[in-house]
Amino acid sequence: MSQQPLGTLSTENLQTLYTQYQSKQLALDLTRGKPSAKQLNLADRIDGILESSFVASNTDTRNYGGLDGLADIKALGSWLLDTPESAVIAGGNSSLTMMYQTVLFQKLFNPSWQGEISFLCPTPGYDRHFSICEELGIKMIPVPLVAGGPDMELAEELVSNDKSIKGIWCVPKYQNPTGVTFDDETVARLANLGNLAGDGFIVLWDNAYAVHHLDNKHPDPLADFWALSEAAGTLDSAFLFASTSKISHAGSGVAFMACSDTQRAFFLKHLGMSSIGPDKVNQLRHVKLFPTKSALANHMALHAELIKPRMELVVRKLDEHLKAPSQGEWTRPNGGYFVTFYAPQGTATKIVALAAGLGVKLTPAGATHPYGNDDSDSVIRLAPSFPSVAELDEAMDAFCLCVALATAQ
Amino acid sequence: MSQQPLGTLSTENLQTLYTQYQSKQLALDLTRGKPSAKQLNLADRIDGILESSFVASNTDTRNYGGLDGLADIKALGSWLLDTPESAVIAGGNSSLTMMYQTVLFQKLFNPSWQGEISFLCPTPGYDRHFSICEELGIKMIPVPLVAGGPDMELAEELVSNDKSIKGIWCVPKYQNPTGVTFDDETVARLANLGNLAGDGFIVLWDNAYAVHHLDNKHPDPLADFWALSEAAGTLDSAFLFASTSKISHAGSGVAFMACSDTQRAFFLKHLGMSSIGPDKVNQLRHVKLFPTKSALANHMALHAELIKPRMELVVRKLDEHLKAPSQGEWTRPNGGYFVTFYAPQGTATKIVALAAGLGVKLTPAGATHPYGNDDSDSVIRLAPSFPSVAELDEAMDAFCLCVALATAQ
Repeated sequence: MSQQPLGTLSTENLQTLYTQYQSKQLALDLTRGKPSAKQLNLADRIDGILESSFVASNTDTRNYGGLDGLADIKALGSWLLDTPESAVIAGGNSSLTMMYQTVLFQKLFNPSWQGEISFLCPTPGYDRHFSICEELGIKMIPVPLVAGGPDMELAEELVSNDKSIKGIWCVPKYQNPTGVTFDDETVARLANLGNLAGDGFIVLWDNAYAVHHLDNKHPDPLADFWALSEAAGTLDSAFLFASTSKISHAGSGVAFMACSDTQRAFFLKHLGMSSIGPDKVNQLRHVKLFPTKSALANHMALHAELIKPRMELVVRKLDEHLKAPSQGEWTRPNGGYFVTFYAPQGTATKIVALAAGLGVKLTPAGATHPYGNDDSDSVIRLAPSFPSVAELDEAMDAFCLCVALATAQ
Repeated sequence: MSQQPLGTLSTENLQTLYTQYQSKQLALDLTRGKPSAKQLNLADRIDGILESSFVASNTDTRNYGGLDGLADIKALGSWLLDTPESAVIAGGNSSLTMMYQTVLFQKLFNPSWQGEISFLCPTPGYDRHFSICEELGIKMIPVPLVAGGPDMELAEELVSNDKSIKGIWCVPKYQNPTGVTFDDETVARLANLGNLAGDGFIVLWDNAYAVHHLDNKHPDPLADFWALSEAAGTLDSAFLFASTSKISHAGSGVAFMACSDTQRAFFLKHLGMSSIGPDKVNQLRHVKLFPTKSALANHMALHAELIKPRMELVVRKLDEHLKAPSQGEWTRPNGGYFVTFYAPQGTATKIVALAAGLGVKLTPAGATHPYGNDDSDSVIRLAPSFPSVAELDEAMDAFCLCVALATAQ
């Protein structure tokens, strides 16, 4: 690759380069936030970790039961969720499932959720949150995600005036896809939102990247949403989620949620109709893998060693090759799995198509928006965790080339 | 315990014995079909069985994805379900969850399931099937479970005349709670039921005890429901379920379902909104544990060594102490987890209460019936798998004493 910044080349030179790149027949994928094999290797000792001892706190983990999860795993849940252990429910392998169930049970059984209902969707956001709304017939209202979190002025105005709004999706730390961490004022105002909204309003607090710092010594601080909700008298609105999917093994981790006693009783009552209890053996494996908070932190530092160079490479390539703001803007996350690239208005679709032409797969433009509608055709989510550093290097050169070409045309 | 059959004692002697038994302060539980610790021990080598090798058929089982389950586990599913491998979906740790999802998705998204809908419930039956109906607002219509399965004459008449009937629950082999296996004619008529019913009718074929014979050499034969449904042109009505919950570890097994291509696409589309894919690592563990059909059969023979003496003890005690039909009747299953005791009409509640007075916990009378309503107050489900043989011996003496006393009074 040329040493000269791609963003400074003439359209003609960019086109020549693009043709050269096509002949490379790349096959690179920056679409999903999947851990790499090296990250997964970090937890491989989980198989066999029980050494044939399946009993924990007088519970035979092998048998049926224990709807709210193994007592011993709740500490891990509380470290991730930043709530009391007693509020934690430990589930199966997916916090997404617990979020879906939370929304489903409210929708089916909460009398104040009848008729048309809506959710606030900080945007850009996580596409699978939006899919749950679409699946369950919940109208989505975008709220811009700005530097400190969702635009709270607008969120407050909306819930005050429109009592059909029953929820808001939040990824408060290293947000998917921007990497933004909500600031203290935003968290406090989110905790208070239930006081402005109509009956049955809930905050879905998806803390998927709670301990996923690039630098363990300098994590983004996040205010205590549980305590703030308690202080605001809105604890019945607070639903917090986390999992070990990006800590142990992505498909066989343990998911957690926390909510108030009232909501807990409601959730477990309905969960019990479809469950024989979670996989407690796998929960016990995770107890052994992460016996202490510092064992967890040490493990996450090993993840950071693999993730940090990739996240930094993405930002460095963008810095090197492109000139903000005429060729786009981008975030500089301190954790999580994503960098958001804000292409100049009206160019995101073109960039994604150009990249596809080079064999670099990107999340479709619009995927980070409710109904897939990015009116400004600007947001592109970059997910650098899965490829090798060498592959990523190549993919980012190709990406910058496509941006330069699309914004030059 | 007296050598004399309890059923032949005078009321006065029975009362004296009852008082003596009270002083024993028993604490025995015959309520749930839980495997005993010895049964669970049979699969303990599952932890560590992967020997750090997590890849199967080019799939890294540790990562996200694979909504329909690991390719390699489908053979095990097909052995249990008796369907083609290509029809199998491998899920999480609970077939109950897959049944709930099946009913939920139809209820929410099948246009022909709108308005009031009903299910046929062969009775006595499995309480957790009935709970799903209650939870989702589905009216339950009991159909007597007779020697060869559900009363098909009645079932056919009902679905022909009442188009609000959209489903039927079946446990076709070693039925819960009777132990009855459906005969060939019944299975064929069940496969044809979709031709008589209105649009969207489904058969929930919960083959929970598919390989759970007391004697591997003499299993009850069960007709091929999949093939019969295909021949009848009703494959879109057939939903088959099974799991390894009573094969490997009860709370951390693998659940399976099978259905037609059309229903599969529908199911997976909706499942995908709430799932990151099942725990494929645990599925791979089960591939290693049961690499062949004969490995599975050999494993089940070890279960039978533990279950058979218990099931036989229940029947022997009833035979020894009680005189049918004046003191009740009972089933003689060749597999499964339960014996059903039909107490003389109007005495089941009394018997359960008397047993509780001796410290012997039985499933509440009526639990085997929709809405908990056993109008004849007769059916008591006995679940002998969990206690030790010595405990069970004592519990059955106490039970027979309570029956003799209740029917003498």
